Amino acid sequence: MQILILNSGSSSIKFQLFTMPEAKVICSGLVERIGLKQSNITYTSKNKSLEKEEKINTHKDGLHLIASLLMDPEVGVIQSALEIQAVGHRVVHGGSTFAQTVEITEEVKQKIEKLSALAPLHNPANLEGIIVAEEIFTKAKQIAVFDTAFHQTIPVEAYKYAIPNMFLEENNIRVYGFHGTSHKYVSEKAIDFLAKEHSKVITIHLGNGCSMTAVKDGKSVDHTLGFAPMNGLIMGTRCGDIDPAVIFYMVNSLGYSLSEVNTLLQKESGMLGLTGYSDLRDIESEAAKGNTDCQLALQMNAYRIQKYIGAYAAVMNGLDAIVFTAGIGENSNVIRNLVCKDLDYFGIELDTDKNDIRSKDIRDISKSTSRVKILVIPTNEELEIAKQSFKLLS
Amino acid sequence: MQILILNSGSSSIKFQLFTMPEAKVICSGLVERIGLKQSNITYTSKNKSLEKEEKINTHKDGLHLIASLLMDPEVGVIQSALEIQAVGHRVVHGGSTFAQTVEITEEVKQKIEKLSALAPLHNPANLEGIIVAEEIFTKAKQIAVFDTAFHQTIPVEAYKYAIPNMFLEENNIRVYGFHGTSHKYVSEKAIDFLAKEHSKVITIHLGNGCSMTAVKDGKSVDHTLGFAPMNGLIMGTRCGDIDPAVIFYMVNSLGYSLSEVNTLLQKESGMLGLTGYSDLRDIESEAAKGNTDCQLALQMNAYRIQKYIGAYAAVMNGLDAIVFTAGIGENSNVIRNLVCKDLDYFGIELDTDKNDIRSKDIRDISKSTSRVKILVIPTNEELEIAKQSFKLLS
Repeated sequence: MQILILNSGSSSIKFQLFTMPEAKVICSGLVERIGLKQSNITYTSKNKSLEKEEKINTHKDGLHLIASLLMDPEVGVIQSALEIQAVGHRVVHGGSTFAQTVEITEEVKQKIEKLSALAPLHNPANLEGIIVAEEIFTKAKQIAVFDTAFHQTIPVEAYKYAIPNMFLEENNIRVYGFHGTSHKYVSEKAIDFLAKEHSKVITIHLGNGCSMTAVKDGKSVDHTLGFAPMNGLIMGTRCGDIDPAVIFYMVNSLGYSLSEVNTLLQKESGMLGLTGYSDLRDIESEAAKGNTDCQLALQMNAYRIQKYIGAYAAVMNGLDAIVFTAGIGENSNVIRNLVCKDLDYFGIELDTDKNDIRSKDIRDISKSTSRVKILVIPTNEELEIAKQSFKLLS
Repeated sequence: MQILILNSGSSSIKFQLFTMPEAKVICSGLVERIGLKQSNITYTSKNKSLEKEEKINTHKDGLHLIASLLMDPEVGVIQSALEIQAVGHRVVHGGSTFAQTVEITEEVKQKIEKLSALAPLHNPANLEGIIVAEEIFTKAKQIAVFDTAFHQTIPVEAYKYAIPNMFLEENNIRVYGFHGTSHKYVSEKAIDFLAKEHSKVITIHLGNGCSMTAVKDGKSVDHTLGFAPMNGLIMGTRCGDIDPAVIFYMVNSLGYSLSEVNTLLQKESGMLGLTGYSDLRDIESEAAKGNTDCQLALQMNAYRIQKYIGAYAAVMNGLDAIVFTAGIGENSNVIRNLVCKDLDYFGIELDTDKNDIRSKDIRDISKSTSRVKILVIPTNEELEIAKQSFKLLS
C-alpha cells in the first residue's frame, strides 16, 4: 500500500511516500519558509535528489508543488495521483475529541477546525493540507494522526489546572501535550536501547517548537506543553513558561490589546524576542562571535530544560535516560552541552567528545561512568504516522 | 527602642511589638477575616491573652482596634501612641524600585501605590496600613521591608522571561519573587542547623500564599513566584502555574472579560476552585471523610511542590535540605507526607512518626538514613522585619 505522509507545520510541509507494511521510503522532501521571501524545496527519490528556491505563498501552493514533484516525468515516482491509497496527516491538536488516529470525514474536519482556537499556528495549516490533499488524491483515504494522543496517559494530578472544576468538566481546559508522535517514536527507541523491563526516560524534542515528556514504562506521564502549544520550554518564537500576571499587566498597564499580547507571545517571543534571530544556527554563530544577547538566550534555554529534567526525575522518582531529538536536539552540540552541564548530582555526565560527533544514527553520548544515559535519537514522525495510518486501514 | 511590626495581608493584619535590639516581644496578635461576616482577633501580652470575634470591615478599622488594644488599661502595654519609635511594615511588591529596606516618605508611598498594579491583593493593604499607622503613631519612623528584596540575587537566566528584551529594559517585567522575608529567615536557620560552609537548601513557604526558593550558599537563586504573586505553586485562591493560552481561550472562546479572568485566577482558583474550600484544614478534614475533589487537590498541590524540588535540585546540582514553613508547612503533616513520598531517588526519606508530632520548634523530620534533611522551621517574618528596621535606624 502506498501511503503519503503530510506534516504541515506553521510555515513548512514535510512529506514522505511509504510502501507499507514494508516501511520503505519511496521519496521524501520538505517545503520550507512558506510565505517568506524565498522558499526552499528539497526532494529525494531513489538516487535522485533536487533542491531549489522559489517563492511559495501558501500551503495550498506548496502541496500542489509536492504533487507535481511526485508525478514529475524526471524525478517523480508515480504516474497518477490515483495511485496514492492513503494520505496520513499530522494534526496538532485533537483536544479531548480525538484520543485516537481516525479516518477523516466532513465531521472530523469540522472538529479539527473548531480546535483551531487551541492551536492557531498549526490546526489551520493541518486542515488546509487535508482539504488540498482530498482535491488532489481523490482515491486516497485521508487519515489524521494527532499530536495529543500519546499524552492521554498523563494522570489527572498532572493534567489538571488549579482553576474551578467547571473549566475541566464543561470546557475541557486541561494539559493536552503535543509532539506526541515524536515523543512516542523516540521513547520507544530509547526503551529498546535500554533493554530494561521498567524504564524512566525524559524525551527532549527541540525543533522550532520545543517540549519535554516524562515517559515511565513507555507511557507519557507529564509534559511541558499544556492546553495549547505555548508554555514550557523557550521556543523559536513562543515564550514558553511565563507568569500569567504579565499578560494582565501588558493590557492593563502598558495599553496593549489582548490580541496584540497573544501575537507577541506566540510569534515575537522565545529565541526571536531575546536575540532577533529565530534560527538556532544563527544564534549559536552570533554567540560564538561574542553577542551577549545570544549567549544569554542559549543559557536561558538550557536552564529551563535543566529545571524540567529535575522536575520529571522527581515525579518519576528516578531517571534512566534523557533523549535529545528533532532539529536542534539532534544537531546542536552547544545546547546539549549547556543542558548536561553541572547535572552530575543526577548522574548525568556528558562525554564532550562523543557530543561533538555529527551523525544521523541513534547514539549514546554519555560518559561510561554516567548513571543516566544521554541519547541522541533522530525522530521520525512520518514513519510513526505511516505505521498508525496503515494499522487503522488494515 | 520600641518597634511595632505590621504585616497587612489581603484579609488580615499580624502585629508584634518588639524591644530592639533585644528582640523581646512585648505583645503580639492577629486580626483575621477582615471584611468577612465575623472577624477573629487574638492578642497576647505578658501573661495576658485575649480572643474575640467582632465584625471588622476594613484594614483601617483593624489598625485602630490594634492601637486601642496596645493602649488598653487592662491588656495594653503602652500609655500613649507616642511611645512607639518605629513601625516596620511588610510591603509585598518593591518592583525594581526597592532592592532595600527604606524609611517611608511621601515619594515612597507613591511608588508603593504605583506598584499596586503588580500585587493588587497586597500592596493596597500594605499602603493602607502605612497611612493609618502614620495617623496613629505620629512620632514613629515608618519603615518598609519588601518581600521582593531577598530575591534580588536571582541570576538573569532565571529572572528573565523569553519575551522581547524591551519588556525587561523599559517595563521591568521580570521575576521578582515574594515572601522574601520568610525565605530569608528560615533559610538562615536551616543553614545554621546544617552547619556546613556551602549549602543547597529549598525553602517551601506554604501559607495562604505559597512559594518555594532555591537557596544556594544563603542566596536566593530561583523562586516559584514571578512578576506578581500569582504563579508557581497552587495557593488558597490563586491558580499558580497555568498555560497562558488558557487566558486567551477564556476571553476569545468562552466570552469572559479579561478582568473577570484575572479575578477568577486570583480569587476563585487554587484550592478554593478545586474544592470549594480555601482553608487547608477544611480540605484535609473533607479528604479524610472521602471527598474526592479534596483528595485530588491535596495530591495536585504536593505534585507541583515535588516538581519544583526536582527543578531546584537540578539548578543547584545538589540538595542538602528542604524546609517546610508558614501555616500549612509548619502544621500539615498530610501535605508534608504527600510531598516527601516517592522521592528517595533524591535522598529524601521522611520519618512519618516524627512528621506526625506537632511542635513549635525547629525540627528534623527525616529518617537517619535520609541524605537530604527534611526540616520544619517556624517562620518569623515580624522578627526579621524588626531586625531590618532596627538596622536601618541605627
